[in-house]
Amino acid sequence: MGHQDLGVELKRIFPPERVLTSELERRMYSYDSSFMARFHSFVPDAVVLPRSTQEVSALMKLASQRRIPVIPRGAGSGETCGCLAVRGGIVVDLSAWDAIEEVDVANMQVFARPGVVHYKLNEHLAGFGLFFPPDPGSTRMCTVGGMVANNSSGLRAVKYGTTEQYVLGLEVVLPDGQVIQTGGSNNCRALKNVSGLNLTKLFVGSEGVLGIITRIRLRVWPRPKARGMAMAVFSELEQAPAAVLDVYQSGILPSGIEILDTSAIQAINMYKPEINLPSAEAILIFEVDGNPAGVAWEGQQIAEIVGRRAVSVEWATDPARMADLWRGRSVVAVAAARLRPDGSRIFAGEDISVPLSRVTEALRRIKELSRKHDVAVVNYGHIGDGNIHTAPVINLDSSAEVQRANALVDDIHRLAIAMGGSTTGEHGVGAVRNQYTMDEHGEAALVMKQLKETLDPLNIMNPGKLLPPEGGKDRA
Amino acid sequence: MGHQDLGVELKRIFPPERVLTSELERRMYSYDSSFMARFHSFVPDAVVLPRSTQEVSALMKLASQRRIPVIPRGAGSGETCGCLAVRGGIVVDLSAWDAIEEVDVANMQVFARPGVVHYKLNEHLAGFGLFFPPDPGSTRMCTVGGMVANNSSGLRAVKYGTTEQYVLGLEVVLPDGQVIQTGGSNNCRALKNVSGLNLTKLFVGSEGVLGIITRIRLRVWPRPKARGMAMAVFSELEQAPAAVLDVYQSGILPSGIEILDTSAIQAINMYKPEINLPSAEAILIFEVDGNPAGVAWEGQQIAEIVGRRAVSVEWATDPARMADLWRGRSVVAVAAARLRPDGSRIFAGEDISVPLSRVTEALRRIKELSRKHDVAVVNYGHIGDGNIHTAPVINLDSSAEVQRANALVDDIHRLAIAMGGSTTGEHGVGAVRNQYTMDEHGEAALVMKQLKETLDPLNIMNPGKLLPPEGGKDRA
Repeated sequence: MGHQDLGVELKRIFPPERVLTSELERRMYSYDSSFMARFHSFVPDAVVLPRSTQEVSALMKLASQRRIPVIPRGAGSGETCGCLAVRGGIVVDLSAWDAIEEVDVANMQVFARPGVVHYKLNEHLAGFGLFFPPDPGSTRMCTVGGMVANNSSGLRAVKYGTTEQYVLGLEVVLPDGQVIQTGGSNNCRALKNVSGLNLTKLFVGSEGVLGIITRIRLRVWPRPKARGMAMAVFSELEQAPAAVLDVYQSGILPSGIEILDTSAIQAINMYKPEINLPSAEAILIFEVDGNPAGVAWEGQQIAEIVGRRAVSVEWATDPARMADLWRGRSVVAVAAARLRPDGSRIFAGEDISVPLSRVTEALRRIKELSRKHDVAVVNYGHIGDGNIHTAPVINLDSSAEVQRANALVDDIHRLAIAMGGSTTGEHGVGAVRNQYTMDEHGEAALVMKQLKETLDPLNIMNPGKLLPPEGGKDRA
Repeated sequence: MGHQDLGVELKRIFPPERVLTSELERRMYSYDSSFMARFHSFVPDAVVLPRSTQEVSALMKLASQRRIPVIPRGAGSGETCGCLAVRGGIVVDLSAWDAIEEVDVANMQVFARPGVVHYKLNEHLAGFGLFFPPDPGSTRMCTVGGMVANNSSGLRAVKYGTTEQYVLGLEVVLPDGQVIQTGGSNNCRALKNVSGLNLTKLFVGSEGVLGIITRIRLRVWPRPKARGMAMAVFSELEQAPAAVLDVYQSGILPSGIEILDTSAIQAINMYKPEINLPSAEAILIFEVDGNPAGVAWEGQQIAEIVGRRAVSVEWATDPARMADLWRGRSVVAVAAARLRPDGSRIFAGEDISVPLSRVTEALRRIKELSRKHDVAVVNYGHIGDGNIHTAPVINLDSSAEVQRANALVDDIHRLAIAMGGSTTGEHGVGAVRNQYTMDEHGEAALVMKQLKETLDPLNIMNPGKLLPPEGGKDRA
């Protein structure tokens, strides 16, 4: 079926202004934030912008009949090609379907359509004294639907876990167009429910390969009244993860613990000399939240405990001073890109997770790999749960550098698996890491494939993502 | 195949002392703590006691060949016939396979075999300053494997969630004998991992219908340093859930919030007059944990906030006084049974979950149903998340009372669903609530069936449980 014919069929389901078929419009949906997308042209055959579950259901029926791939998309802030038409097909742009349908304060939950932007949800919830704890770096851009599909998390996963903890129920359109409610029937507002198999959690993090999420029932929490932050400077890298463990063993669970290593400190100071971070092997930033008295107590404890291993620790609860302490961390992603005048920070191999006990070793090994492949790498991330963001910086115009970067990234991914970690702590698999799914999961990956085949026998839901590719490599 | 022949085959896999085939031994495995088990004789064809994954795998291969049902069992503390051979077959008693294989302090996780008893795990973890937060009432009996299979929770789910939040990975033997690792390969110790479909969470709460859990990797948390408790007495039932919401809206998330209604207060005072609870429409007990300063602050706040609606509030951090305040709650299950001299408390309809906003209405409706069916009911439970334990008390020798109790229980279950709740907040479905699975989940229940058929095409894994029965009712 040509683009024009497909467009005609789609316009039987959607009003014409919500069906995009021109070359220009389709090209706008051919990339996300990943490195891989720069080197491919994943232009979809059409794009639709649904505003109702009925439309999505009718779309899936058409796609099933015609065996056309369907690719759900939120804000496109992903770094895995997860929302791209790597095998052609129809991109379903859910970003404009962004109603917060109801905040049910008395039941501590919120009902939202997939396109709601994360920070807007939290802004709205703040008016009720509530919040949705996961806190991705892309908060001003990413959608809650994308967060559910990727099981996103971010800075506060140490204490608050990942998105899945908050998903009470979903409305999902299956590949054949059938609409189901998970987590209880349509009117369910229970906070606890162990009836039936846990379909909700199967769909969370399934990256659109099992169906399209069209409505989300989220548990929300009381907004903490107080917050504090400690910045600690370490002359030896080893002391940083050791200090994290000391804090845990003291009975304290901070809301977040971030690390900047030498590479990140240098990049930040080059980019904004006025931030003037002390030169050190590592800087840790602890965030604590809760009630005012409890936060003060934990701040004092952290300063004392971490002070035994750090060159210096500063504790602050004043918002302006906290913003100062956070300033380096807040610009690190941009700073990495300015490491060299012709450089660009690439999103590839950027999200490994390693056991806490091996963070130092992982950072040293990445430094070795950086030297081996002659590619600069800036390291930072969520040390509190072993999730490291590595930012390779290269000249995109140099095909030799691109090639070296790809080799580096492959080594970083293999290193994470070999160390008992994962290729991805929070960004997901998509089309850029599914070549490792077999290595990470062994026989369990084949069970994943069986479940996929059961729910999507025609393989039209976001094909070429997440699951191990047929016959080995599948990097599109 | 007769019992003797089956015994011979099983003794090729297990040493003879771990294969039970005598009538007496098999009868010991014919009941759990449910009401239903009293009226049936679910005697298995054989019982085996595995000590290795290889044994479980060989067992499943034999069971597949011979198409014999296999029923995993922990401590038998369940209330749903979940571990009983409702269609015959082999019961797999995992309770003696109870090694805590490793506490990996540096990675905040523990590796355990399924038979570890909950309180023993926490006793062991306490030595490392760690704990596994879910806190079921059956802590001194229930196994961690059973908790994972049922997604158990208990008193502290308000703040700490349910078991699933802590399960990082599982070793599972599938119905065909294949062994898989979920949550990453064998050596994975990552705390964050979004690679692949989330099989771990699909197996949590699957009540043994998809496979046998043989090893568990659990995330553990720093043990809080302080605890406090508030008891509040309400002359009007309505004020109790309203006070719970007030506390949430003040930004406080207690570790637990329990309710005793009039029926429970009366039962406790009859059973132990010296406890001498004030007569009231409701008593709430708030538990708060964290650091000493934070706990003190929250205690003061709770006393003030709840004091606006309560007749009296008492806050305590002294362990002896906390034990006093808790005393009524700690005996309520036993007290219910003593409501009348010839009475027994039955476990049926005992675990409904309703939206927080409808707790008062639910308790009043249950009182009406109690009158309608002329069956006494004692109500208590985890009001913080809307999970109410209703305890019908009847004379088990009266078939008329048994019949009335069954009618009452059916009404209670239907009430929970109609109110936007669930028939089960934490105890599970088993064979006693699967008749409601279609009502609770609609079309989603058919998707559950599809997944079950995919992983267990011969329907040998714990058949007759959790999933909607063929052709409607399936109460064995």
